[in-house]
Amino acid sequence: MKKVAVIMGSDSDFPIVEGAISTLRDYCVPFEVHVFSAHRTPEQAKEFSSNARDNGFGVIIAAAGKAAHLAGALAANTTLPVIGIPVKSSTLDGLDALLSTVQMPSGIPVATVAIDGAANAALLAVEILAVTDAELAEKLATSRRKASEKVLSKNYDIENKYNCII
Amino acid sequence: MKKVAVIMGSDSDFPIVEGAISTLRDYCVPFEVHVFSAHRTPEQAKEFSSNARDNGFGVIIAAAGKAAHLAGALAANTTLPVIGIPVKSSTLDGLDALLSTVQMPSGIPVATVAIDGAANAALLAVEILAVTDAELAEKLATSRRKASEKVLSKNYDIENKYNCII
Amino acid sequence: MKKVAVIMGSDSDFPIVEGAISTLRDYCVPFEVHVFSAHRTPEQAKEFSSNARDNGFGVIIAAAGKAAHLAGALAANTTLPVIGIPVKSSTLDGLDALLSTVQMPSGIPVATVAIDGAANAALLAVEILAVTDAELAEKLATSRRKASEKVLSKNYDIENKYNCII
Amino acid sequence: MKKVAVIMGSDSDFPIVEGAISTLRDYCVPFEVHVFSAHRTPEQAKEFSSNARDNGFGVIIAAAGKAAHLAGALAANTTLPVIGIPVKSSTLDGLDALLSTVQMPSGIPVATVAIDGAANAALLAVEILAVTDAELAEKLATSRRKASEKVLSKNYDIENKYNCII
Amino acid sequence: MKKVAVIMGSDSDFPIVEGAISTLRDYCVPFEVHVFSAHRTPEQAKEFSSNARDNGFGVIIAAAGKAAHLAGALAANTTLPVIGIPVKSSTLDGLDALLSTVQMPSGIPVATVAIDGAANAALLAVEILAVTDAELAEKLATSRRKASEKVLSKNYDIENKYNCII
Amino acid sequence: MKKVAVIMGSDSDFPIVEGAISTLRDYCVPFEVHVFSAHRTPEQAKEFSSNARDNGFGVIIAAAGKAAHLAGALAANTTLPVIGIPVKSSTLDGLDALLSTVQMPSGIPVATVAIDGAANAALLAVEILAVTDAELAEKLATSRRKASEKVLSKNYDIENKYNCII
Amino acid sequence: MKKVAVIMGSDSDFPIVEGAISTLRDYCVPFEVHVFSAHRTPEQAKEFSSNARDNGFGVIIAAAGKAAHLAGALAANTTLPVIGIPVKSSTLDGLDALLSTVQMPSGIPVATVAIDGAANAALLAVEILAVTDAELAEKLATSRRKASEKVLSKNYDIENKYNCII
Amino acid sequence: MKKVAVIMGSDSDFPIVEGAISTLRDYCVPFEVHVFSAHRTPEQAKEFSSNARDNGFGVIIAAAGKAAHLAGALAANTTLPVIGIPVKSSTLDGLDALLSTVQMPSGIPVATVAIDGAANAALLAVEILAVTDAELAEKLATSRRKASEKVLSKNYDIENKYNCII
Repeated sequence: MKKVAVIMGSDSDFPIVEGAISTLRDYCVPFEVHVFSAHRTPEQAKEFSSNARDNGFGVIIAAAGKAAHLAGALAANTTLPVIGIPVKSSTLDGLDALLSTVQMPSGIPVATVAIDGAANAALLAVEILAVTDAELAEKLATSRRKASEKVLSKNYDIENKYNCII
Repeated sequence: MKKVAVIMGSDSDFPIVEGAISTLRDYCVPFEVHVFSAHRTPEQAKEFSSNARDNGFGVIIAAAGKAAHLAGALAANTTLPVIGIPVKSSTLDGLDALLSTVQMPSGIPVATVAIDGAANAALLAVEILAVTDAELAEKLATSRRKASEKVLSKNYDIENKYNCII
Repeated sequence: MKKVAVIMGSDSDFPIVEGAISTLRDYCVPFEVHVFSAHRTPEQAKEFSSNARDNGFGVIIAAAGKAAHLAGALAANTTLPVIGIPVKSSTLDGLDALLSTVQMPSGIPVATVAIDGAANAALLAVEILAVTDAELAEKLATSRRKASEKVLSKNYDIENKYNCII
Repeated sequence: MKKVAVIMGSDSDFPIVEGAISTLRDYCVPFEVHVFSAHRTPEQAKEFSSNARDNGFGVIIAAAGKAAHLAGALAANTTLPVIGIPVKSSTLDGLDALLSTVQMPSGIPVATVAIDGAANAALLAVEILAVTDAELAEKLATSRRKASEKVLSKNYDIENKYNCII
Repeated sequence: MKKVAVIMGSDSDFPIVEGAISTLRDYCVPFEVHVFSAHRTPEQAKEFSSNARDNGFGVIIAAAGKAAHLAGALAANTTLPVIGIPVKSSTLDGLDALLSTVQMPSGIPVATVAIDGAANAALLAVEILAVTDAELAEKLATSRRKASEKVLSKNYDIENKYNCII
Repeated sequence: MKKVAVIMGSDSDFPIVEGAISTLRDYCVPFEVHVFSAHRTPEQAKEFSSNARDNGFGVIIAAAGKAAHLAGALAANTTLPVIGIPVKSSTLDGLDALLSTVQMPSGIPVATVAIDGAANAALLAVEILAVTDAELAEKLATSRRKASEKVLSKNYDIENKYNCII
Repeated sequence: MKKVAVIMGSDSDFPIVEGAISTLRDYCVPFEVHVFSAHRTPEQAKEFSSNARDNGFGVIIAAAGKAAHLAGALAANTTLPVIGIPVKSSTLDGLDALLSTVQMPSGIPVATVAIDGAANAALLAVEILAVTDAELAEKLATSRRKASEKVLSKNYDIENKYNCII
Repeated sequence: MKKVAVIMGSDSDFPIVEGAISTLRDYCVPFEVHVFSAHRTPEQAKEFSSNARDNGFGVIIAAAGKAAHLAGALAANTTLPVIGIPVKSSTLDGLDALLSTVQMPSGIPVATVAIDGAANAALLAVEILAVTDAELAEKLATSRRKASEKVLSKNYDIENKYNCII
């Protein structure tokens, strides 16, 4: 199976990125985690994404905050799908990271998920790998059913406790 | 090859969606185009995405404006990767569509591209299909090289015309 | 009397939704509370709102955060009035939920109240039922008078304590 | 049948309000149209909404731009449901009117629709009247079916013209 | 001397309004403090501002949050200068109150100060009274000098402690 | 009577400022118009506002766009009331000018009106002068009545043309 | 004298960038103009800025729109001062480019000017070169005087035409 | 060597400004720290910046919050490069300060860094001085290398701990 790369722009993004790691583990998808900064280690970031396809990666996930260039910088050097997680920092509530990640110019897409949406980024990576992997697709379907059942069970509890039909 | 579905919420989104269609044609990727509204034809939208994988689709692209629920509504009924194009409408400059598309809750990701970023949505779909398709990956690489050469040629023109080294 | 449905997209919205429940209790309006997710249990959400009128409901209240599609998804399957409560989540201060709820396309209105405005959502539901229910209308008028008196009494306290006419 | 009141803050809002008028006509709902300004004719606005229920109104629609106080000012003097249409003016793209209309304090709800969403405001008014009017409810259902068919027909045209299954 | 009215829309605004009260006390300007809600006690608000000039007031200060209509509602019934303080509430950081207060339609101005800027509202009221009151103008000038000296003294401390001229 | 100063930061603001000039003329209030830039002619701006009270001015109106410092810069050198008009420029729809004008620090208030709200700025200046000028106050009251009558007349036209009581 | 580099991310930015070129010409500062895209020609962008200091450049100006990474990408590979011009594109009025340019992480500053502020970017570059170039500093001072005189002359015209001292 | 001036608008900005001071110390660049308010001590601010070049300064850094005029006010009186730090205050998350600092009119640039980006402001000042100071440029290069190594070392730790290649 192709590997997923999980790149963060700074190790301070790790608490957010952790949500992606645990989701990837849930699906038994092989992955690598790296700290590459678009600005402080541009050479390593470029190196990594230039060779990612040859090195067996199928998808790259990039998490960064503020003027979040990481996903775009990686996407500039690969034609693998790159998923961007805008990370909320101390000001502007993540709007800066969202716009810096999603508003990519024509030619270099970044698949952007919600601010701090690391679990969804991993899920999207799994969905991408599952396009041609029936077993993985089945796992995704099972998870959906479980998530649905969890909501239904919550619904059951709340209905019983609060409905008020006079 | 898996097909790409290009769904728009209203036929008024067609001028934007056209950018996705022509990009998919450039890559000779088979695709279907549909008008399904999350709100006016929810049944058809649901039907389509529930069966999309079985019907040979690999990726779904959804374009919608304002309270843009279409991508999310499709994603709720499939585990295929769903790409969302937020479409700018007459007010708020597309910010409403962007937030309605990208801020998905945990469990149901939507791969969001820039406001009105239809060409990039198609390109992302091609990248996803190219994860396991070496020929398509090669086409993407070729396109990148051409895009790069085009920039270099513009650079050459502008350098010659405007540099001013006294 | 017609019932009011109070639907939340996730049980984590319950602390907000509680304000609607207690207001409905104050007016002795019968109600049901449910957890239906537009994305995780779309089938149940659709089922519920498709049958809501036949099942004796007069108004549906829907609370959801982020890319808040719930109110719109319910409205797509009923012609009962649907009231949307945009719920503030961890980023963007509820602006994402507000725009996702209020900016509905032509044909499918959602009656949107303030961010986290659950009490007002319930009050609006009561006002809707009171259009043809004189007793309920009288109760609303009485509440208004009490709210007004409460402000006047606060005014009295503060006037006495702080006015400073030299 | 109860009447619907359509109030605009200034006659310059008429081009937007027109969408509400034609929708109400489509449903044969009786209505009155007025120009009352929360700031320039506060007395008349107050007078009108204080007596609206007694004068046979069931719903009030209010359209205003900028610091759009009209819907709230009317709601302060009635317990009828008040629907607010935020009108886009020359700056800020309607965001000022949206926030001024929707962010009402606890106790006085305004049912807010999209910026410039006059047709939906009228539709919401019809939905409110239809809670206890089976014939009107049937008309709404018929309209929905027609809207749905219109989308399906557009879908049919676009599918035929653009699908590209190699 | 003309009196200043300090009106708040809810007693929960008192902690902000307090800054205006203490500033007015500093200048020995007579004032009255009231709680009048544009929505819950519209009659009293109207009554007060209609008679404010005759009752010896020179300026009205109004503080309110969210869809902050209070200042505008008071201004609609008087031609005295009305100063609006937008109060920050639990969402949107006061932007809703700012736009609802400042974006008044032509004909009914509200003199808006910064979000939560109660001290400046009071200062502005004093400046208005001082237009024709030389003694009060002198007091304002003295305060400015003191404020300036306070900054200079802070400057002195910080210069001594941190300058670093190698 | 005290004079009103109307200062603009650039002669390109004149089309907006014109609204203030014509309003002042309507009230026969003496005024001076100047172009002083906070950044390009800071010395003249400072000179003017430092001496404004001694030179017979009662109120200063300042119009500026973008990082609109003019009103604040004038306010820093006078204790006369300073009214700020945020002017919309080619980007950001006037939000930059609004925030730069209204968010003044404690001690130096600027009475801010709506974006491009020049007529209201002039009206506010007249209201300030009218605090101690009964004749001017009477003129303001007359204008209000006329504005009210104008709305009522528009109301009359529209009622007659559009009401639809079946 | 050190050269200034003027880099644009796309030749479509040229109409904005032109303002920088003409300003640099006014000051007889040698400059080079290039089209390098952070995403389409990352290699050339990197190459250029890595060698910029050795190639005789003193300052780099970078103009880009949307998710404007160019200035940051150049800054990542040089310790020369990099000035960023956020360019307004078809949506969001340049806010995306502004935040993507200015919100740089610690360690890699970008000196950001106003949206579309190309002339100011060039002026800032000249100011930087003038820190150690007395002649250039004198030219800047002369320009300021001329700009000031131009405002004063406009002021003179407008004063004469519009002042109204009854 | 030229000195750097670090000016803050209020001593309450000191906790932010401290990041600039410690960075300047790291580079052994001589600096002065001052508290000058654009509004409370405009005279001193003007005095300082008018004479800054003659007094041996090469760059001015200005930190201010809310309607942050300080950087622009200093820039209006000098042709030295002025760097603006927008400081986040209690409302609007620093957006007011950012727009007030960066959106300068043509002719008077301010080199704006990120909200609360004091360390980057200092670094930018050092970069400006280093344009003609090879030793300082070397120090900057060394720092960059160290920052890069720090990221690489974090990368090493995280790779070892989390990579999961099944």
